[in-house]
Amino acid sequence: MANIAKKVSWSGRGDDRGERTPLLNGDEEVKYNRQLSGGGIFHIGRLSTVDLEEEITPEEDIVRSRPKEIPHNEKLLSLKFESLDYDNSENQLFLEEERRMSHMGFRCLEIRRWVICGLIGFLTGLIACMIDIAVEKLAGYKYFAVKLNIEKYTELGGLSISLILWAVLNSAFVMFGAIAVAFVEPIAAGSGIPQIKCFLNGVKIPRVVRLKTLVIKVFGVICSVAGGLAVGKEGPMIHSGAVVAAGVSQGRSTSLKKDFKIFEYFRRDTEKRDFVSAGAAAGVSAAFGAPVGGVLFSLEEGASFWNQMLTWRIFFASMVSTFTLNFFLSIYHGKPGELSSPGLINFGRFDSDSVQYNLYEIPLFIIMGALGGVLGALFNIINYWLTIFRIRYIHRPCLQVMEAMLVAAVTATVSFAMIYFSNDCQPLGQDNTEEYPLQLFCADGEYNSMATAFFNTPERSVRSLFHNPPGTYNPVTLGVFTLAYFFLAVWTYGLTVSAGVFIPSLLIGAAWGRLFGILLSFIASSQSIWADPGKYALIGAAAQLGGIVRMTLSLTVILVEATGNVTYGFPIMLVLMTAKIVGDYFIEGLYDIHIKLQSVPFLHSDAPPTSHWLTAREVMSSPVTCFNRVEKVGRIVDVLSNTSTIHNGFPVVAHTSENDEPGKICGLILRSQLIVLLKHKVFVERASSRLSQRKLQLKDFRDAYPRFPPIQSIHVSQDERECMMDLTEFMNPTPYTVPQETSLPRVFKLFRALGLRHLVVVDNENRVVGLVTRKDLARYHVGKDGLEELHLAQT
Amino acid sequence: MANIAKKVSWSGRGDDRGERTPLLNGDEEVKYNRQLSGGGIFHIGRLSTVDLEEEITPEEDIVRSRPKEIPHNEKLLSLKFESLDYDNSENQLFLEEERRMSHMGFRCLEIRRWVICGLIGFLTGLIACMIDIAVEKLAGYKYFAVKLNIEKYTELGGLSISLILWAVLNSAFVMFGAIAVAFVEPIAAGSGIPQIKCFLNGVKIPRVVRLKTLVIKVFGVICSVAGGLAVGKEGPMIHSGAVVAAGVSQGRSTSLKKDFKIFEYFRRDTEKRDFVSAGAAAGVSAAFGAPVGGVLFSLEEGASFWNQMLTWRIFFASMVSTFTLNFFLSIYHGKPGELSSPGLINFGRFDSDSVQYNLYEIPLFIIMGALGGVLGALFNIINYWLTIFRIRYIHRPCLQVMEAMLVAAVTATVSFAMIYFSNDCQPLGQDNTEEYPLQLFCADGEYNSMATAFFNTPERSVRSLFHNPPGTYNPVTLGVFTLAYFFLAVWTYGLTVSAGVFIPSLLIGAAWGRLFGILLSFIASSQSIWADPGKYALIGAAAQLGGIVRMTLSLTVILVEATGNVTYGFPIMLVLMTAKIVGDYFIEGLYDIHIKLQSVPFLHSDAPPTSHWLTAREVMSSPVTCFNRVEKVGRIVDVLSNTSTIHNGFPVVAHTSENDEPGKICGLILRSQLIVLLKHKVFVERASSRLSQRKLQLKDFRDAYPRFPPIQSIHVSQDERECMMDLTEFMNPTPYTVPQETSLPRVFKLFRALGLRHLVVVDNENRVVGLVTRKDLARYHVGKDGLEELHLAQT
Repeated sequence: MANIAKKVSWSGRGDDRGERTPLLNGDEEVKYNRQLSGGGIFHIGRLSTVDLEEEITPEEDIVRSRPKEIPHNEKLLSLKFESLDYDNSENQLFLEEERRMSHMGFRCLEIRRWVICGLIGFLTGLIACMIDIAVEKLAGYKYFAVKLNIEKYTELGGLSISLILWAVLNSAFVMFGAIAVAFVEPIAAGSGIPQIKCFLNGVKIPRVVRLKTLVIKVFGVICSVAGGLAVGKEGPMIHSGAVVAAGVSQGRSTSLKKDFKIFEYFRRDTEKRDFVSAGAAAGVSAAFGAPVGGVLFSLEEGASFWNQMLTWRIFFASMVSTFTLNFFLSIYHGKPGELSSPGLINFGRFDSDSVQYNLYEIPLFIIMGALGGVLGALFNIINYWLTIFRIRYIHRPCLQVMEAMLVAAVTATVSFAMIYFSNDCQPLGQDNTEEYPLQLFCADGEYNSMATAFFNTPERSVRSLFHNPPGTYNPVTLGVFTLAYFFLAVWTYGLTVSAGVFIPSLLIGAAWGRLFGILLSFIASSQSIWADPGKYALIGAAAQLGGIVRMTLSLTVILVEATGNVTYGFPIMLVLMTAKIVGDYFIEGLYDIHIKLQSVPFLHSDAPPTSHWLTAREVMSSPVTCFNRVEKVGRIVDVLSNTSTIHNGFPVVAHTSENDEPGKICGLILRSQLIVLLKHKVFVERASSRLSQRKLQLKDFRDAYPRFPPIQSIHVSQDERECMMDLTEFMNPTPYTVPQETSLPRVFKLFRALGLRHLVVVDNENRVVGLVTRKDLARYHVGKDGLEELHLAQT
Repeated sequence: MANIAKKVSWSGRGDDRGERTPLLNGDEEVKYNRQLSGGGIFHIGRLSTVDLEEEITPEEDIVRSRPKEIPHNEKLLSLKFESLDYDNSENQLFLEEERRMSHMGFRCLEIRRWVICGLIGFLTGLIACMIDIAVEKLAGYKYFAVKLNIEKYTELGGLSISLILWAVLNSAFVMFGAIAVAFVEPIAAGSGIPQIKCFLNGVKIPRVVRLKTLVIKVFGVICSVAGGLAVGKEGPMIHSGAVVAAGVSQGRSTSLKKDFKIFEYFRRDTEKRDFVSAGAAAGVSAAFGAPVGGVLFSLEEGASFWNQMLTWRIFFASMVSTFTLNFFLSIYHGKPGELSSPGLINFGRFDSDSVQYNLYEIPLFIIMGALGGVLGALFNIINYWLTIFRIRYIHRPCLQVMEAMLVAAVTATVSFAMIYFSNDCQPLGQDNTEEYPLQLFCADGEYNSMATAFFNTPERSVRSLFHNPPGTYNPVTLGVFTLAYFFLAVWTYGLTVSAGVFIPSLLIGAAWGRLFGILLSFIASSQSIWADPGKYALIGAAAQLGGIVRMTLSLTVILVEATGNVTYGFPIMLVLMTAKIVGDYFIEGLYDIHIKLQSVPFLHSDAPPTSHWLTAREVMSSPVTCFNRVEKVGRIVDVLSNTSTIHNGFPVVAHTSENDEPGKICGLILRSQLIVLLKHKVFVERASSRLSQRKLQLKDFRDAYPRFPPIQSIHVSQDERECMMDLTEFMNPTPYTVPQETSLPRVFKLFRALGLRHLVVVDNENRVVGLVTRKDLARYHVGKDGLEELHLAQT
């Protein structure tokens, strides 16, 4: 049956029953409880702690006995995800409002949109700046303390004390981060990119764009990066930007109990999506100093409809974001006005003269791309199994925190061991760029080269791999480092901490890329152009990252912008393309894997190619619960309260009785609209008495957005049940419809291009025969033997 | 009434009656002739000279008396433009074919698409390379000859002979180009960007993607650039790329009478559009060395639906294109493998160290942006009046050729006068980059600075303005040059020659930008960062170009890629944004002006904001000519032959009689499909006798695409008129429909997002009440006093 109900079980907020599973750790146990509607009392008064998404807390513990192992099957499509309304419900109220607005009014709206985008960019840039400074400070203290300790014990002996200090410091940082994430806001785990992809795709992920999520995310990412995990702070910026955008554009925060009474026009999913796109772009922009890349990221992942003004606004937000970051960092670094840090990660300057590549290097780049594809696929496969393991066995918050701490300690230990057993000493140059050169057992005036890679924040390590002069690293160091860091990074991604996978991927790739370059220069030592291992480090980094995330155009541009030089555009494109083709042969990209493991009904940009066999008749849900134009309140309440088949959209038909033939469609009304109508008791019988009262306005719907109360919270008396409700004014009178014979690709195109939530299927008499929703389309996908259908599951 | 007929008058090919008006010189006389269908005999056998668009030559001269002045009113919407079918007609034949195809089959298709994109990129790159070499050679000979002559007569006196030589050489080159364009293929005039915008938007511009157009375009652009006009060769590359794409993707050329029998699957508008996007992107990429900019250009101008794979393919074509150009130019320059010319225009290397900008320069950039907006608007306004003048008075090809020659001669004269009267002598440095330094009256070892700007191809002049060291030009020279070149460029754009406006715009902007920089350094001479006038030249160039064309994101990226350095991303964005906002206050962008002057029904990305007042009922055309499922051949022939109301799409209804109430919709059939059916005589009565014959296949439709014969060429006997035709198998059984109450923005969104050509409006019984086509939507636009409606005109 059509549309899915609000579910309360997933990452439910019951106190500490080990109930929470973060977004991307699926929870396949059937927690769905049909008795919920009978006995459940919902706290809708608790708006003070919630922000931008709805929250319903079931008081009773509906799942008391919890099995140790949670089975998981990724061939499922969860029914618990709602869709967002990316198609405006153009009912009479809406049209009246639009018609009242003058040309000037639309201009003002447009200006307001620009102001909001500017604000989004500014705030995102500020947050990036804050994260950067906090991480730098904390990591600085940590490395300083450990360095002193190591220096002390190198002479005395007993370096194991240094190791313990390091491991404890790391674990402590990570513990704070993991506790915040696991116990307070599990949705803040990971990079947030899969969640934002889903949001832009039209799937409602609970609490993903809340202020609280943002706070935890920022805190978490500072802790995990400072804690020395193999993670980056760039991915989370995208999520942060999106939250900022969702918050600013709505002009209110229920967490802070503050409604600024501005931007009320933008309180609907359509507008919010546009701003969230801008926020995500601003996040990318601040993370990599890549404003164009940010725009392309948003477009590639989200917006299906290209609108010139929207794109330009998104670009504006991106530009403001990188500029803000740059400006404040320049002040922080004591050189106000010198705009040299456009992003959190700075690849450093690739000078134009040294970065020429030659035609005969292109086959080499393609080989590196293929290698990156294979290594990326390996990364994804290992992480896939690890994630399934985590879903099954590590679903309690305390276990999750412990795992995170364990990884932190192991990371420190491995790093320490690497440094300890490495005997790669390099002379300390005059223009030494190492922040914390560890001398250890090296001679005076030399430093341990392995420490450059391990005893440092990953961003700095990437930069030194790109730019340190040839000969800085010996091949064995690089090889061992690649291997160790690869497995650390695989293990780390998916932990219950806020962290991104971009930087570790770049670091792994840069390491083996540089190794590749060094080996090449051994083979052909005469030609100086081969001798620049930094170039190969860059190509390797691109290959590895491309192999893992499989982004295409946007990633090319991000990398080009991050290097600050377009010369490498062509090689980077070739490498990313090869990596994607090779990687796709084995397994999907990392983000898609995690989205799939969550059974999210994600719609790709095209229907599966072989789906012309199917028509709307086969994919639609039927029969459909319809309402009459003038419907009895009792029936509406009953339908909304029925928890076995929870719908969110109802076709409104002319003259239908319960068991009769289907009626002719005359509109579509949403659950949320009905709820507001019931709450305001807009009954026909009251119309006369309501003459003195004000008429229901669009504002009432906007005020309730986006957290409409559940039906159980609305009290309807027995008398009122006999009243009638006239839906004419509130329903969307012109829903999109398709005939039953429409092929699936055609339905898909309509659905995706317009961002629909419900598509009514009618017969040739315009009678409602079915309803197509997101899950009806998302369940078809191309498997190994052609078209496959995913099973639908309540969880 | 709905859909517009094929018209024969516009840029008709009647022999030499002064009939031809090139695409963007409208022709407002009512040439439409209702008797056409009666007496006109159409030559449909002349396929040998036609390529990718249909061509119908009326033998009789339907417009014999021609007024001297052609009135023009831009508040018109022409009915003579057909739409393209960017929505697949999913009839039974199509579905059967798709269903027959295996998963492997779709893979092969996808690979073929990649191969085609690679070919498009390769050929576009080759063409760019050819143009570049030809222009360089020809211009080289010209300047060499003139230089020798000037040197000779500087001593002897009598420089007027040199002037005459220069003017004659220029005029001769331009004459060849103009004759080719004006007499052979008027559509090849101008840059072709407005035409490609229209094509991607879904408007069928006759002959725009033909091989012949490409040949004339390439020849024309070589002539006009070599002829020293104030034009660039970059804009035409976009058109050239699009033609290459349209040709390659269809796997045949009727000009060359060659059908390669490949890529037959792609013979429809939907697929062709995707390839043309790729071609346009490849063109941008080859022109500016800006592959990402090319992709963004295509997306900004054309594709409304973002599809990840498509975008990636477009990017591939772009990359191959710039790479091919780079590769072949490196061979030509004798340094194979040194990839240093990614585009036709090379901005030269902006070295990272010298290009830092400072925070306090940003207000200056914004001021320059505003200045660019004002100057751009001025350019557009003058050009607008000039274009109207040309439409009215200069519509004969011989006049057009003469005007072009006049402009060429004047350009030479002005240049010569400037050089002659300039006394700005500069020392000839060691590392002199001037190709043709003119000594003239300067001392030995010095050269005339004005000649650097005028006695050179515009590309070289731009580069020297960007990169020559401070002090190369004196302010007066720059001021005079700006002024002179501005008016030359305004006059030149719109001539009947193939030429682009990018380079002249950049050149004007670079000149006043450099002037701005020099003046600034006078004011604040102490700070060295102000002293780099090259930076201000770049910003000025961006401002001027932005002020004229008003492109946004794509132009930012194009400029960033052309400079090879992302440092200037933020200033360039600011400047372009300011220029657009300021310029839009006065007048639209240049391309939009020319599209509007042609009365093209162009659909922008959004409906006008204040159009919620209107519903489908008001905008639709009605009554609609419908057909029955099984229709009499005679009626079909009559309807198709009726020239007073020429439709291209017909709803198919169940059981309707001519004067009855409207029937229930059951499909939609296109004129082109009916023509093919009539041609193959697919009549019910012949079904029994056709048992031995093969069934009509999709291939038959594809073979006829895109030049379906006119109805008049199909002979239907009196007996056959009594036969019946069953349309069920060929009609699209699931056309998109909307109810009458749907608001205009909602109709617009559906229409634009899906690339529709016909949208059927139905009542609540699913009976056809109207049809919405492109012109019904395009005629509403926002004027000064709110929503305005354009008048529809047959011409």
